Amino acid sequence: MSEKPSSVHYINYLSLDKVLDAQNLVSKEKGKAAHEEMLFIIIHQTYELWFKQILHELDSTMVLFRAKQIDESNIGVIVRRMDRVNKIMNTLVGQLDILETMTSLDFLEFRDYLSPASGFQSHQFRKIEVMLGLKIEKRHQFGGCPYHSQFEGKKKEEILNLEENESLFSLLEKWLERIPFLSMEGFDFTKKYEEAVSQMMEKEIEGIKSANLTEEDRTLRIRMIDENRKYFDRVLNEEEHNKAIKEGETKLSYKATMSALLINLYRDQPILHLPYQFLRSLVELDHKIATWRFRHVQMVEKMLGQKIGTGGSSGQGYLKQTVDKHKLFTDLANIATLMISRSYLPDLPKKIKDKLSFNYNNI
Amino acid sequence: MSEKPSSVHYINYLSLDKVLDAQNLVSKEKGKAAHEEMLFIIIHQTYELWFKQILHELDSTMVLFRAKQIDESNIGVIVRRMDRVNKIMNTLVGQLDILETMTSLDFLEFRDYLSPASGFQSHQFRKIEVMLGLKIEKRHQFGGCPYHSQFEGKKKEEILNLEENESLFSLLEKWLERIPFLSMEGFDFTKKYEEAVSQMMEKEIEGIKSANLTEEDRTLRIRMIDENRKYFDRVLNEEEHNKAIKEGETKLSYKATMSALLINLYRDQPILHLPYQFLRSLVELDHKIATWRFRHVQMVEKMLGQKIGTGGSSGQGYLKQTVDKHKLFTDLANIATLMISRSYLPDLPKKIKDKLSFNYNNI
Amino acid sequence: MSEKPSSVHYINYLSLDKVLDAQNLVSKEKGKAAHEEMLFIIIHQTYELWFKQILHELDSTMVLFRAKQIDESNIGVIVRRMDRVNKIMNTLVGQLDILETMTSLDFLEFRDYLSPASGFQSHQFRKIEVMLGLKIEKRHQFGGCPYHSQFEGKKKEEILNLEENESLFSLLEKWLERIPFLSMEGFDFTKKYEEAVSQMMEKEIEGIKSANLTEEDRTLRIRMIDENRKYFDRVLNEEEHNKAIKEGETKLSYKATMSALLINLYRDQPILHLPYQFLRSLVELDHKIATWRFRHVQMVEKMLGQKIGTGGSSGQGYLKQTVDKHKLFTDLANIATLMISRSYLPDLPKKIKDKLSFNYNNI
Amino acid sequence: MSEKPSSVHYINYLSLDKVLDAQNLVSKEKGKAAHEEMLFIIIHQTYELWFKQILHELDSTMVLFRAKQIDESNIGVIVRRMDRVNKIMNTLVGQLDILETMTSLDFLEFRDYLSPASGFQSHQFRKIEVMLGLKIEKRHQFGGCPYHSQFEGKKKEEILNLEENESLFSLLEKWLERIPFLSMEGFDFTKKYEEAVSQMMEKEIEGIKSANLTEEDRTLRIRMIDENRKYFDRVLNEEEHNKAIKEGETKLSYKATMSALLINLYRDQPILHLPYQFLRSLVELDHKIATWRFRHVQMVEKMLGQKIGTGGSSGQGYLKQTVDKHKLFTDLANIATLMISRSYLPDLPKKIKDKLSFNYNNI
Repeated sequence: MSEKPSSVHYINYLSLDKVLDAQNLVSKEKGKAAHEEMLFIIIHQTYELWFKQILHELDSTMVLFRAKQIDESNIGVIVRRMDRVNKIMNTLVGQLDILETMTSLDFLEFRDYLSPASGFQSHQFRKIEVMLGLKIEKRHQFGGCPYHSQFEGKKKEEILNLEENESLFSLLEKWLERIPFLSMEGFDFTKKYEEAVSQMMEKEIEGIKSANLTEEDRTLRIRMIDENRKYFDRVLNEEEHNKAIKEGETKLSYKATMSALLINLYRDQPILHLPYQFLRSLVELDHKIATWRFRHVQMVEKMLGQKIGTGGSSGQGYLKQTVDKHKLFTDLANIATLMISRSYLPDLPKKIKDKLSFNYNNI
Repeated sequence: MSEKPSSVHYINYLSLDKVLDAQNLVSKEKGKAAHEEMLFIIIHQTYELWFKQILHELDSTMVLFRAKQIDESNIGVIVRRMDRVNKIMNTLVGQLDILETMTSLDFLEFRDYLSPASGFQSHQFRKIEVMLGLKIEKRHQFGGCPYHSQFEGKKKEEILNLEENESLFSLLEKWLERIPFLSMEGFDFTKKYEEAVSQMMEKEIEGIKSANLTEEDRTLRIRMIDENRKYFDRVLNEEEHNKAIKEGETKLSYKATMSALLINLYRDQPILHLPYQFLRSLVELDHKIATWRFRHVQMVEKMLGQKIGTGGSSGQGYLKQTVDKHKLFTDLANIATLMISRSYLPDLPKKIKDKLSFNYNNI
Repeated sequence: MSEKPSSVHYINYLSLDKVLDAQNLVSKEKGKAAHEEMLFIIIHQTYELWFKQILHELDSTMVLFRAKQIDESNIGVIVRRMDRVNKIMNTLVGQLDILETMTSLDFLEFRDYLSPASGFQSHQFRKIEVMLGLKIEKRHQFGGCPYHSQFEGKKKEEILNLEENESLFSLLEKWLERIPFLSMEGFDFTKKYEEAVSQMMEKEIEGIKSANLTEEDRTLRIRMIDENRKYFDRVLNEEEHNKAIKEGETKLSYKATMSALLINLYRDQPILHLPYQFLRSLVELDHKIATWRFRHVQMVEKMLGQKIGTGGSSGQGYLKQTVDKHKLFTDLANIATLMISRSYLPDLPKKIKDKLSFNYNNI
Repeated sequence: MSEKPSSVHYINYLSLDKVLDAQNLVSKEKGKAAHEEMLFIIIHQTYELWFKQILHELDSTMVLFRAKQIDESNIGVIVRRMDRVNKIMNTLVGQLDILETMTSLDFLEFRDYLSPASGFQSHQFRKIEVMLGLKIEKRHQFGGCPYHSQFEGKKKEEILNLEENESLFSLLEKWLERIPFLSMEGFDFTKKYEEAVSQMMEKEIEGIKSANLTEEDRTLRIRMIDENRKYFDRVLNEEEHNKAIKEGETKLSYKATMSALLINLYRDQPILHLPYQFLRSLVELDHKIATWRFRHVQMVEKMLGQKIGTGGSSGQGYLKQTVDKHKLFTDLANIATLMISRSYLPDLPKKIKDKLSFNYNNI
């Protein structure tokens, strides 16, 4: 709270004299200002400003997660901040519409001056990727050098440090492993869940057998159930899971995966409501970043077609590869594969239900 | 769970033969099909389909609210359904962009055939308004007759019944009045809050006095604080509040208003998190409906300009009036006026904090 | 074309060290950084960057319009630039969703430090308004002083100069007046149009008389036509039009209005296609700015409710007034009122049609 | 124009009693209505309504293109209709946000009842694909049967007929081949263009040689230019082009490609303005359909994870394949590869410039 008010002017508060004096058209410097270069600079600057905001939110979220115990009201704060990051992503995707008003012919007026500057050199975007959990060995290679060779001095150091620190992915994993609900008051979640899955499949097979189906259709459906069963078996088996991690098929630890499954299945319990929203927001973020990359590819296609990029290969091709490959929370999205209908969901004993609820009931 | 699977085809499941056979161009009937009439019909049909979905969500929400006690997990359900309604509203606003590709000249090809059919005759939209809580006497009058004279038979009856039933507004009010947190364990919320407001204002005045301001600026700021004080005094006084209700300045009862204020101030407490989201979603809905009306006015302006409408007066003028006048949850939006900075917020005694929290702490 | 390539880095090209170092939280300076202040600063900075881009486009458009003769290919350029401005407006409206993740309680953490800084002090936004054609005497008054008293020195001078220069509105008016199509090759557009309107109304009255309508309905419809006729009479009469200008009911000159009408009616002629798109883009811009103001009001309502603003009165109230009052191209929108169905549109003589067409026909 | 007005009611005009009575929840039929099934039905119905509108626009566009000569004013009509289709696509993408409010757990309440109904069975969407030009042999195979085995009787026949008719792609190709600008008044476009490309590359190499670059950087840049040269050579050679068509690398004929290139390069000429907008709108449509497929994949991932689909394989996998593979106008997007900066663009002789312009100059 301000005790001594001062007199601030909007222009100074926002350092506008600095921000609005940072558009230096290289085409102008080289002789003839290209009208369209202004848009190119300004949209990239807005991207960078928003990246700074995303870093601000991610950073504060990770600080909260590094605490030994996470107060529930903080989960609320985290959910709100991730929601904000996702809303920012909406704008980042949407404003590509503005850039797409620049056509190929317009872009060529100043494109050559830029070489080899490129969005790959966005330090902040690299930081976002690393903080979310993208590991250097999982990156799609582009050219011969590691991505951080783009940076020097303090900027390079910062990236290398981040690579070694805990990421949002690893903090999430630890938090999920710490959640105490997998086994409590004699309720063994994994076992109960396995039983439910078995029961569901038996019922499904019975249904198919007694249904009025063609032989072909019946065989198909039974085969589907068999394949589903194998999938469930593999996922629920800790050893198999660890093997899959080793082979790079999955990343999230067995225990964390089970907790994430529990949260997804029992998300209507008050205490799990916000954790569920948080897991969901991470899948959302992954999807929104992928959508941004995808639309980015389209924009480059419109602007450059198949033109050979400044690094000697197609930038569009690189971007295309990252759409799927740089996703980080696929394991959380895949939990959907394990969902079972509420009618098969094991009932929680009242004692446990109470524990997951508020002290003050039924407002 | 399906025990006996059957064989469904997409086209039958969606009754597409019915839905896709319901576009009868009146221009075609009258002689010459106007290309653009198809869009006019189809966009209105999608609006009506979405209205049906909104009614489905509102209806189910109101059923949950009519229960004597509302289980917390149901608040979660309600919040999700209101969130869906708000997402639908986004599409309803956004798809006006499609209709705006029809220009004035295009519209005139078939406009005369439609008279006097009009969006005012949307039975479902009227139901939405009434279910949310719009009272006939609060409606902006259009032409000489009550709005429901547009309908006959069962449709009219249905509207009249809804007018008499509880609305979402009245159910909300009762629920807020029932919430037991205004006074518990010797903590009198309203009193504590009043003290905090007083303290805040004193500090502000002190700060202004000791600041290095021009005489003019100082006087202005002190006057502002005085006006704020009067506002707080009026709002916190139950008698004044009831007078304001009588005079039509506000609608929500004193007790419900105080509960809404408490929820807004202490929304970080776990048990208040979802109630806060719910209140927020209602303000959001009000704003989205208003935005839809606003953009609707703009579209009509582009299509018809100031043309005299089929009822003998300007449809655009009517729509313009409803933008603000048909808002229903302004009292909830106005709670923002009463917010005070967290630094002045009275601390909740630990006993109460525990009550508002989960049984299972610190996951 | 670059003849001598140089080596540019993305970070330098975008002056990121400057742009990303311009976020100075006043709350941090005063003792305790408020997490949410970062968003407040960054979103305003992106707004200002986009304003700079809008000014860049408006400015270049006005340069093209100041030429004595406007090459048609330039109309294409102008249309593309206005389209870009409109796409920018979409982002400016859409990104309010991000700011709305900041709640009242969050904002109060640092709001007091800002006083009296305010968006009213955005120099660039004032310039946009003035360049489009907003005259100081048409502005909604806020507080006792003229809006430019917010600025000093060169910034004030710049605004005062712009006020005296030609605006996009006045350049548009002159261009419309210069268009040579109102009377050519013996075709007097206004006269032909008047005849068509008369004919249309007669037919409508005949139709009503012979239709199977209730007496009440018939009277209503005839009254509507009468009112429409009066409207057309008034608009087509030059003297009446000039009176309306004097009384502030309309702004665009009689001749410019007639040209705008002609463009709207015969927009399918090749040479009028782009001029029509340009007129349309101006109405669109007016509407998008109004939508931005409208959503801005809603955001302030959610953030501050009815709080007394820093200038001693309600900022929300001011904003609300400007939504309609600061529109500039209403006269163009109102052309829609004068549209008549294509079936009544006077045919253009072949000689004229050819003139409005390409040299090279039927590609 | 209506000569005899009649009395139409909104509800009848829109056949609402039919449209709003077409939501039959199979879960209700089977015993217990699942709340969420309503959304599933309604959103699919709105999709189908919009598909009907898209078909309406495509159909009318193709009728105009089948004419021997296309009047320029018709190009304007076509551009507006394609623009509308693109705006519809925006809504189709955007409203996925509504469907994504349905979670995995919600969907499982009724999913089993639907089998094997699936969006693959949308007759209208298949028609859109075929009308745009998707050939059965270019389709990503799904299961063992051709896609049209989903349909029977008249619906199947209709699809088979469409497969044999001209598509928008083939009509576009013919129209581009017919455009008379490649060689006129002694101006041989392809030759002039080739010369310009050569000249550009020579200048670029000169520039690189005289620039202050590292040896490594110089070699890289020269290699890039060599690769670009090869690309241009291949594209401009008719024989090579025909070989590429045979090998399935490209589809658009050599002559049509050259015309599309000319339109892109000289789009500022009045007569080419609308043709350019049309080509652009097709690339846009391709991208928007791809974006819709892409977001559709994401939605399925959130709803079903890696669940085995009803046809025995992963629906998500099928969809993923179609994102790129079902694009139709990639050849038009790739024109961007051939753009050269305006400074190298061969000047058009005045005689030709006049031909591409309006009769009435300089309005």
